[in-house]
Amino acid sequence: MSELNRQIVLNEIPSGRLASEHFRLVESPRPTPDDGQVLLRGLYVSLDAANRAWMQGATYRSALRGGDVMAGGALAEVVESRAAGLKPGDLVFADTGWQEYSVLPGRGLTVAPRIEPLTNLLSVYGVTGLTAYFGLLDCGRPKAGETVVVSAAAGAVGSIVGQIARLKGARVVGVAGGEAKCALLTRELGYDAAVDYKAGDTRRALRAACPDGIDVYFDNVGGDVLEACLFNMKLHGRIACCGAVSQYDGAPPPHGPRGVPGLIVTKRLTLTGFVVMDFYDRKDAALSELREWVKSGELKVREDVIDGLENLPSALIGLLAGENIGKRMVKVA
Amino acid sequence: MSELNRQIVLNEIPSGRLASEHFRLVESPRPTPDDGQVLLRGLYVSLDAANRAWMQGATYRSALRGGDVMAGGALAEVVESRAAGLKPGDLVFADTGWQEYSVLPGRGLTVAPRIEPLTNLLSVYGVTGLTAYFGLLDCGRPKAGETVVVSAAAGAVGSIVGQIARLKGARVVGVAGGEAKCALLTRELGYDAAVDYKAGDTRRALRAACPDGIDVYFDNVGGDVLEACLFNMKLHGRIACCGAVSQYDGAPPPHGPRGVPGLIVTKRLTLTGFVVMDFYDRKDAALSELREWVKSGELKVREDVIDGLENLPSALIGLLAGENIGKRMVKVA
Repeated sequence: MSELNRQIVLNEIPSGRLASEHFRLVESPRPTPDDGQVLLRGLYVSLDAANRAWMQGATYRSALRGGDVMAGGALAEVVESRAAGLKPGDLVFADTGWQEYSVLPGRGLTVAPRIEPLTNLLSVYGVTGLTAYFGLLDCGRPKAGETVVVSAAAGAVGSIVGQIARLKGARVVGVAGGEAKCALLTRELGYDAAVDYKAGDTRRALRAACPDGIDVYFDNVGGDVLEACLFNMKLHGRIACCGAVSQYDGAPPPHGPRGVPGLIVTKRLTLTGFVVMDFYDRKDAALSELREWVKSGELKVREDVIDGLENLPSALIGLLAGENIGKRMVKVA
Repeated sequence: MSELNRQIVLNEIPSGRLASEHFRLVESPRPTPDDGQVLLRGLYVSLDAANRAWMQGATYRSALRGGDVMAGGALAEVVESRAAGLKPGDLVFADTGWQEYSVLPGRGLTVAPRIEPLTNLLSVYGVTGLTAYFGLLDCGRPKAGETVVVSAAAGAVGSIVGQIARLKGARVVGVAGGEAKCALLTRELGYDAAVDYKAGDTRRALRAACPDGIDVYFDNVGGDVLEACLFNMKLHGRIACCGAVSQYDGAPPPHGPRGVPGLIVTKRLTLTGFVVMDFYDRKDAALSELREWVKSGELKVREDVIDGLENLPSALIGLLAGENIGKRMVKVA
C-alpha cells in the first residue's frame, strides 16, 4: 500500500463553465484513522450532475470551496478499521471525495454486498437506481396507460426512470440530446418515442410525441425542457423535480421557466422536489424490486466506466456536456 | 321590469394594461328564456383577478374575445323560469356576465339560501371562501405551530386564508401592498406579521418576518413575491398555487421566478395548483365550518361593495391595481 495519497483538488469555484484548469492533482501523505474511524481505498467514484451544483452554493450539502478535495461519493473498500462493525475488505459507499485514500467515521457507513459486477452498486443498486425508483413512483405516481416523459433520458437516472415507467404500464417518451441517444432509447431501452432537444422546437416535438398531453414529467434538467413540458402537461399532471442539469454549469440562471405559476394553477399541476435520501427507510423494498427486474432482463443497466483517478475532471466536464450514456463512474483502483 | 338590458361589452383584448376604453356600455333587448332556461336578473357581480386572466387565453374556461359581453359570475335572481326546480325569486350564483339580465340553462344552477347579508354568498360562502378553505387546507396542509405566508393578504381570498390559518394554529404572515393594508392585517385580521411588498426588498423582509423559514405559502400573485418566498421556504415546504395576479394585467411575462426548479429540488418543496371547482364534492362540509367561524366572530368577513353596473370596468381595473380590501363586488340591481 502506497504511503502517498493522490487527490484531485478543486482550485477555485468556477464562475462560468467548469474546465480542467479548475482542478489539480496533488499528492499528500496517506491519512491514518483515529479511534472510531476507518481508512478507505476508493474503487469507483460516482460522477453526478449534482457534483457541479455543489459548487453553486449550499444544496442538500454545504457548498464546496476552492482548495477542497473535490467532493463525491464512491464505492470504497475498508483497508484499516478502528470502528466497530467494519473490518478490512468490507465494501462501503461513502462520501470519500476524489482521492485514493480517505479517512471517515465508521458510524453511518453500511457494508455493501460484494455483488458481480461491483459497478452495479453505483448504478442500478445505488443512488442512481433509487433516485429513479422513488422519484418516479412516489413523486410522479404514474398509472398504467398514462404518458410519462423523462429528460436526460439516456443518462444514469433517466435510463432507469423510463424503463421503470414502462414496467408499470405507462407510455414512455424520452428527451435526449442527439440522434444517437434518441435511437438508443427507442431501440434498446424500450421507450415508445424520443424527442431530440437539440433538433429544434422541443415544445412542438413534445406535442407531436404526446398528442394527449403529459401525465407525468420526470425532470432532470430544468430550463427550456421543463418549460416545454409545462406547456404540454395534462390537467392534474405531476412533475417530479429531480435536478436541473441544464443550469448547473455556469452562473445560476437569471430566470425560471415561463408558465410558473400560471400553468400550475390552470392545469392543477403538482410539482414535487425530492432528494433520494429522504426515502432511505424504504430502500430495501426498492432494491428488491430493482433486483428482480434486472435478473429477469426487463431492466437493462447501462454503465460508462472510465479508468484512472486523473480522468475525474474530464469525466465530470463530459457528463455536464451530456456525453455519457447510462451511469458514469471512474475506476480509481 | 325594463324591456332593455344594459350590458358591458369587452371591445377588444387588451395588449397592455386593462383600461376603461376596453369596455363599452350597450343596451340591447331583454332576452327571453326557451324551454329549460331561466331569465335571471343580476344582483351582485363578483370581481375577481381571474376576470383579467380570461383575456390572456384559455384557462379553466375558454378565452374571452373582443365583442363578447364581459364574463363574470354573479349572484342573481330568477325572474322567469322555464326550467324544472327553479321558480321566480330563487337566488342562484351563475355565470351571467356583466349585464342586468341573462338567460341561462336551468340545469346546473343551484338555489342559494336567502341569507343576511346576501353579499356573504359572494364572499365567505362563495367561490372566495371555498378557494381560501380548500387551497389552504388541502394544498397547503398547515400544521399547528407552522409558519404560513399568504400574498394579496388583504384581498378577498387572502384575508380569509390568513384567518383560517390562524384558526388552525399556525403563525401567519401576510404580504400586501402599502402600510394601510399591512396595519389592517395585524390589527384587525389577527395576522402575526405583515410584509409590505411595495416597501423594498421583499425577500429580506420575509426572512425577518419568518426567521425559521416558511412552511406553507399560499400564492395569489406569482412573480417577484413567489420568488421571494421560494428563497425563504423551509425544507419540505408546500406552496398552494391559487393565482398570479401580478401577471395578469399585461402580456404574459417572458420568464418565471428564479429558483425553479433548483430550490424545489434542494428544499424538497411541493407546489400544487388548484381550481376550487375540483373540491365541490366537499363543499357542504367546508361551508358548515366557515359558518361556525363567522357566527362565533372568529372569522371576520371584509367586503367592498360598489354600486352600479356602469362601474364594473373601473372596479376591475382598481382590483388589479390592488385598491380593494376584502371581497369586491358590484351591486347591479
